[in-house]
Amino acid sequence: MPEIEALRYDPDPCSIARTLDLVGEKWSLLVLREVFSGVRRFDDIRRRTGAPRQVLSARLGTLVSAGLLRRDPYREPGQRTRYEYRLTGAGMDLYPVLVSLLRWGDRYLVPPTGGPSLELTHRDCGEPVDLVLRCRAGHELTSAREVLPRPGPGARLLDPDDPRAVPAARLTATPAGSAASAGR
Amino acid sequence: MPEIEALRYDPDPCSIARTLDLVGEKWSLLVLREVFSGVRRFDDIRRRTGAPRQVLSARLGTLVSAGLLRRDPYREPGQRTRYEYRLTGAGMDLYPVLVSLLRWGDRYLVPPTGGPSLELTHRDCGEPVDLVLRCRAGHELTSAREVLPRPGPGARLLDPDDPRAVPAARLTATPAGSAASAGR
Repeated sequence: MPEIEALRYDPDPCSIARTLDLVGEKWSLLVLREVFSGVRRFDDIRRRTGAPRQVLSARLGTLVSAGLLRRDPYREPGQRTRYEYRLTGAGMDLYPVLVSLLRWGDRYLVPPTGGPSLELTHRDCGEPVDLVLRCRAGHELTSAREVLPRPGPGARLLDPDDPRAVPAARLTATPAGSAASAGR
Repeated sequence: MPEIEALRYDPDPCSIARTLDLVGEKWSLLVLREVFSGVRRFDDIRRRTGAPRQVLSARLGTLVSAGLLRRDPYREPGQRTRYEYRLTGAGMDLYPVLVSLLRWGDRYLVPPTGGPSLELTHRDCGEPVDLVLRCRAGHELTSAREVLPRPGPGARLLDPDDPRAVPAARLTATPAGSAASAGR
């Protein structure tokens, strides 16, 4: 998917990097996995994910500060007030990230003998749920190769001398005479 | 999305965790972002991502070993052989992970004045590309709440005494009398 045009633009600010700064750490996404499954309490999340207590505490704090989870107080008889963690709307909208990770792992990392340990079904009809790339004209895309990335309204054109501006020549075919072009 | 049934099952092996073990580190996904954009050479990837040289070298090694990238040799006149990094089919299939991260960041982390810096369009027709959750009966899902996770063929039932088996009572409503149930 070589896209020369996009590479004349500043790679920052990048929404992928911004999102990863928030949730791009294994425990954060595993915590969200549990909350999506209905697990809400610190100790339950800790046992289900295996996250160390202090790490979990820090990650939950970040997710709450960022507005992905909210803390609701509860109290068991005779105990002090504790908190349950619930998804906000913004947290709920991260679901496609988890589904895409799950689906890739199911396909490439699960031994075919065992099969996936989790299936996602449509609550209303029971059919399996897929993640689909589709354009607004209604065409379904079967591969990333069908996507053309283009600069958006927030894109910043790089100075041609900026080292982050990759010359078009380096994005195209492997130079003639190399082992790659001879052998493939 | 409380799903009691799934929580009687072992959270491991989880395809989300397996995938994150491979690519769940910020630099890995930023490297893939660049390769998806057609950037193939070590120094270009380094400049575009800002990854430290040694980290980048390690991440590229992992991605090649895992079969997400392949190394193709090339040689500029008068220089030693170097390598370009290209996506394999398995690497290409990670695209939905990047798209879902991008879309979430565009929605929640980009100042509305600037707008997204990158737009994904359908190569054939030019229309914007979306990621859609859809069931095999053709229903489109608008929220994670419409998904019902179920144990798959590889699921392992937990012993009820296993601390990772969360009692159903903890997944449902906040206990009466707490501030949460009183105030919301």
